[in-house]
Amino acid sequence: MAHHDDPAWEPAYARRSECMKASEIRELLKILEKPGIISFAGGIPDPKLFPGPAAAKAYVDALATPKSTGVALQYSVSEGYGPLTEWVARRMTAHGVSATPENIVITSGSQQALDFLGKLLLTPGDTALATLPTYLGALQAFSAYEPRYDTINPERGNRTPQSYREAASASAPGAKVKFCYLVPDFANPTGDTLSLDARRRALALSHELDIPIIEDSAYSALRFDGSDEPSIQALDVEQAGSLDASRVIYLGTFSKTIAPGLRIGWICASRAIVQRLVLIKQASDLNVSVINQMVIHQLASNHIDSMIAAARLHYRKKRDAMLRALSAHMPRNITWTRPEGGFFTWLKLPERVDGAKLLERAVDEAKVAFVPGKAFHHDGSGSNRIRLSYSLPTIEEIDAGISQLATLL
Amino acid sequence: MAHHDDPAWEPAYARRSECMKASEIRELLKILEKPGIISFAGGIPDPKLFPGPAAAKAYVDALATPKSTGVALQYSVSEGYGPLTEWVARRMTAHGVSATPENIVITSGSQQALDFLGKLLLTPGDTALATLPTYLGALQAFSAYEPRYDTINPERGNRTPQSYREAASASAPGAKVKFCYLVPDFANPTGDTLSLDARRRALALSHELDIPIIEDSAYSALRFDGSDEPSIQALDVEQAGSLDASRVIYLGTFSKTIAPGLRIGWICASRAIVQRLVLIKQASDLNVSVINQMVIHQLASNHIDSMIAAARLHYRKKRDAMLRALSAHMPRNITWTRPEGGFFTWLKLPERVDGAKLLERAVDEAKVAFVPGKAFHHDGSGSNRIRLSYSLPTIEEIDAGISQLATLL
Repeated sequence: MAHHDDPAWEPAYARRSECMKASEIRELLKILEKPGIISFAGGIPDPKLFPGPAAAKAYVDALATPKSTGVALQYSVSEGYGPLTEWVARRMTAHGVSATPENIVITSGSQQALDFLGKLLLTPGDTALATLPTYLGALQAFSAYEPRYDTINPERGNRTPQSYREAASASAPGAKVKFCYLVPDFANPTGDTLSLDARRRALALSHELDIPIIEDSAYSALRFDGSDEPSIQALDVEQAGSLDASRVIYLGTFSKTIAPGLRIGWICASRAIVQRLVLIKQASDLNVSVINQMVIHQLASNHIDSMIAAARLHYRKKRDAMLRALSAHMPRNITWTRPEGGFFTWLKLPERVDGAKLLERAVDEAKVAFVPGKAFHHDGSGSNRIRLSYSLPTIEEIDAGISQLATLL
Repeated sequence: MAHHDDPAWEPAYARRSECMKASEIRELLKILEKPGIISFAGGIPDPKLFPGPAAAKAYVDALATPKSTGVALQYSVSEGYGPLTEWVARRMTAHGVSATPENIVITSGSQQALDFLGKLLLTPGDTALATLPTYLGALQAFSAYEPRYDTINPERGNRTPQSYREAASASAPGAKVKFCYLVPDFANPTGDTLSLDARRRALALSHELDIPIIEDSAYSALRFDGSDEPSIQALDVEQAGSLDASRVIYLGTFSKTIAPGLRIGWICASRAIVQRLVLIKQASDLNVSVINQMVIHQLASNHIDSMIAAARLHYRKKRDAMLRALSAHMPRNITWTRPEGGFFTWLKLPERVDGAKLLERAVDEAKVAFVPGKAFHHDGSGSNRIRLSYSLPTIEEIDAGISQLATLL
């Protein structure tokens, strides 16, 4: 018997709930379902690249015998499925960071890694360093642990270590700068890549402040032009002598190279840090779905290099279409970034234009969606910026959508 | 180049890290892999019951077309896969709680639900009420949010509301009693079930303290004898008039009825609470693996009642074998619970016997594993208790293992 006029009851929430807001991106996923909207919103991989038949084969293989079924559908250790942590360690080693499975913990995508690192490192009032703008999902994950944010700018130059320290301790008694978060390759939201000098500058600051760098490499496999820079972790391991002596915590994911729906990523770090993260994984959700780890292991072992090659070609064409369409349709007072990889370009609108208000008009009048820039700014600025993702729409939709959007500007 | 004599570097961790310890159960999962050990340790379902072929079919179906693959392997909304939240809402309604999909959020097993509720409700120093003993995974999840624990005893009688309130506010400035955690059916670790009177008493206390009850129903489908009591949520909804007016937050899981390896559970609560939990899901790991939600939806729709019936018969035989073996082999100064369902019996050893030391001897000398009781006690007591799970070993192993264990006592 439901009486819909009964008064709703709500508990007293934790203090942190004041810091937890809905993500504009996640709300926008719902707009995607509206027919007729061309979406430049979510950082969503193109499902045309998903390995449907190979994944189906891998699921069937995982369930082929009672013995393998007994592993695939059972609980498991929190560290991750052994063959997968071994594969990831070999992959990290091939990319310049000599790692063993004890340096790896498997997570439910990189988003869970961000949550775990907030949980591991942040006491309320502590300072997290990040660029302005930065990935809004990272801000969401960290904000649950009630940090203060401060801005680094490794490309143009950071403030002095002393100035970061003083600002941190002034904000709360005993509060410290706890980590520096970076997306060095084809960053979300700007598409920008940090130069080698900027990587070294970020690393120097982390040494001076004696803090870890969280290196989020979500898009790094998807380079279209130019040449790879070494990861910040590889630079630090070279300098420190070993991964166990390094202060860089590297986040990898299969979401952009294989598919996001299996929810599998990893953290590569010193064994001491990984041991702590395994405890957090235990307490948070025990372990990542074993069958999904088995399937990702099989897909990665057999197909990842050809999948990455195909993804680079596919998204490169879309990036080209986006830059072509912006040049063709946008008025002169609007500028944008030219990403060498990844999913995003970042537009600077005239000062008077508010990205959130533009979105409302864009959805209604131009049938186009994107993400307003403000959510990527931990200081509340950025209202005249917008993020455009070219990963999901077709080349025809990119041209049509940008043309329609330009009519509003 | 790894130089293994480089000094390891560690960051300054969050204050909460002092509260996060390794679970004895999770460590024991590693013992399971040692050949020749009979394990009464983990609360592990018997893989003989896993629906291997039906799951394989469901995975193949989810990946049968490009369109379904594009859903199965993509990101999704944080609430959960629509057809699954609808199925769960109908199931809850059939069990006495009139629910809609807006009352449901899908989680990565019940463990993640426990983590989310700690995150939602606990400011450091707040009080969580729990029975003594209680599920150690819940203590692990909550402890990351630095609570104080206090003890309720709904079966024998609670303290006065005023006494709980005073103890909470004495522990830290502004600290409050925030929730009451209960496993009413075939509890982990005791196997005990709360009587109807005890359920009403717990509910009365939660009303007097104006706090939610977290009702963890992990084992409730697995009743062997006797008859079901109504869930505490059903009792509260009847009294409050609707789920939105109720203060009970119900945790369900498919881990014990279908399989744990897909990592799928749910929370059923008022829409206001569910909306908050969806934000937490977003920030924590975006969404549960869509393909696993599709597979669980297909398995639950087609097979759950026959699977539950089979599981009841299967585990009932094992429970009977366990009680028979305990009666046959254990000395008179040892007592145990007689569960009407679930996976566990709970032994009281003589005062002088330490369960943790007994475990060391049991693994070495008797080739038997179990979980020492102390980890289930938030006050550090319980060293002469042990938890025996009969879910995984065969009937022959149960008899042999208990016989071997008894030689040490």
